[in-house]
Amino acid sequence: MTRFHQSVTTDIVIFTISDEQLKVLLIKRANEPFKDQWALPGGFLFEKEEPDKAVVRILWKKVEIKDVYLEQLYTFGSSGRDPRGRIITISYFALTPKDKIKIVVSDKVQTPTFRSVKQLPDIAFDHNRIITYALQRLRSKLEYTNVAYSLLPQYFTFNQLQRTYEIILNKKLDKRNFRKKFILLGLIKPTKKVLKGERQRPAKLYQFISRKPTELKKFF
Amino acid sequence: MTRFHQSVTTDIVIFTISDEQLKVLLIKRANEPFKDQWALPGGFLFEKEEPDKAVVRILWKKVEIKDVYLEQLYTFGSSGRDPRGRIITISYFALTPKDKIKIVVSDKVQTPTFRSVKQLPDIAFDHNRIITYALQRLRSKLEYTNVAYSLLPQYFTFNQLQRTYEIILNKKLDKRNFRKKFILLGLIKPTKKVLKGERQRPAKLYQFISRKPTELKKFF
Repeated sequence: MTRFHQSVTTDIVIFTISDEQLKVLLIKRANEPFKDQWALPGGFLFEKEEPDKAVVRILWKKVEIKDVYLEQLYTFGSSGRDPRGRIITISYFALTPKDKIKIVVSDKVQTPTFRSVKQLPDIAFDHNRIITYALQRLRSKLEYTNVAYSLLPQYFTFNQLQRTYEIILNKKLDKRNFRKKFILLGLIKPTKKVLKGERQRPAKLYQFISRKPTELKKFF
Repeated sequence: MTRFHQSVTTDIVIFTISDEQLKVLLIKRANEPFKDQWALPGGFLFEKEEPDKAVVRILWKKVEIKDVYLEQLYTFGSSGRDPRGRIITISYFALTPKDKIKIVVSDKVQTPTFRSVKQLPDIAFDHNRIITYALQRLRSKLEYTNVAYSLLPQYFTFNQLQRTYEIILNKKLDKRNFRKKFILLGLIKPTKKVLKGERQRPAKLYQFISRKPTELKKFF
């Protein structure tokens, strides 16, 4: 059987929340095509290199980030997506509190910068499409998983949780309704701790029952 | 930048329900490696061929199936998965009523056979792992999407719906609980039709509000 040669890359969408905005990490391309344009961090897989390992290597090389939670997103392979010819890309996405990411600013790395998803610059290749797809996945995961844990401290108030949801979903949510629905999901539990504000009355602190990404609540 | 050469295949997990069992379509391999062993239908991508198009081509070539709903599952790329060297596979999964699949039995096709997921034979490569992954995806989709519509007729009783869930989840569900939870999901609506049995009293018929695969109910 004939085996055809394919070029395979990986591209990584890293989301965080800062300044009350959902942001994605972009880098400035050092080479053609799209030299000096913003793009997702990514690169070619070495021969025989496993995609999961390539992602870790590329994140370190391009933006000097490590220890970030990664999940495979989707594999894109249409012919028009790269001017160099058909290149297949295995995309990944990550979600992390901003302070957990250590970006080492050095001469080697390509100006890694978090940009608000609402005000993205011109982006190279089909990376806009990949970001849109990742955002969709993230939003749909909010509906039925504990994924928000990775953006919140261990203990948080219902207001903090709601604000996280509002920022990602890009809409205001009704306070009572949000509380009712979220409790129904069965993903969090109250603690005995409270958050004492200076002017407000103390707010009850909650925590996620599980802080592992794969555990979904079984409905049936 | 150096571009490495990769071999890329696609493998397809097609599920159906028949004889009250969840089954997956396997073919008998015509070539080495694993000649004469059961495997998922699959094959190499042509140079510059889009993965989605390769799947359609391969399904027709290997099992003479067309017009089946397909969804990309996951891309596997570990080094030990194929004795010919590292081959990346983009896997897909499908779910379809058995009578909608037209398998043309001919000399060209490789003995396409539906096998119960509970009694799978020895399977080539890491295809067992791919089937397990697909089954997981399918089960988790039952929790929050309308995916079951693709296995049910347009009008169905609550009992038929529950039985479909039980077969896929491989467990008995409490009738009252199932009904309560499913209504909460807001995916189906009652019709004015009834199913008249010979010995039972007529059962109310329901239908899915949407019979498109991507529409999920938004919780928030």
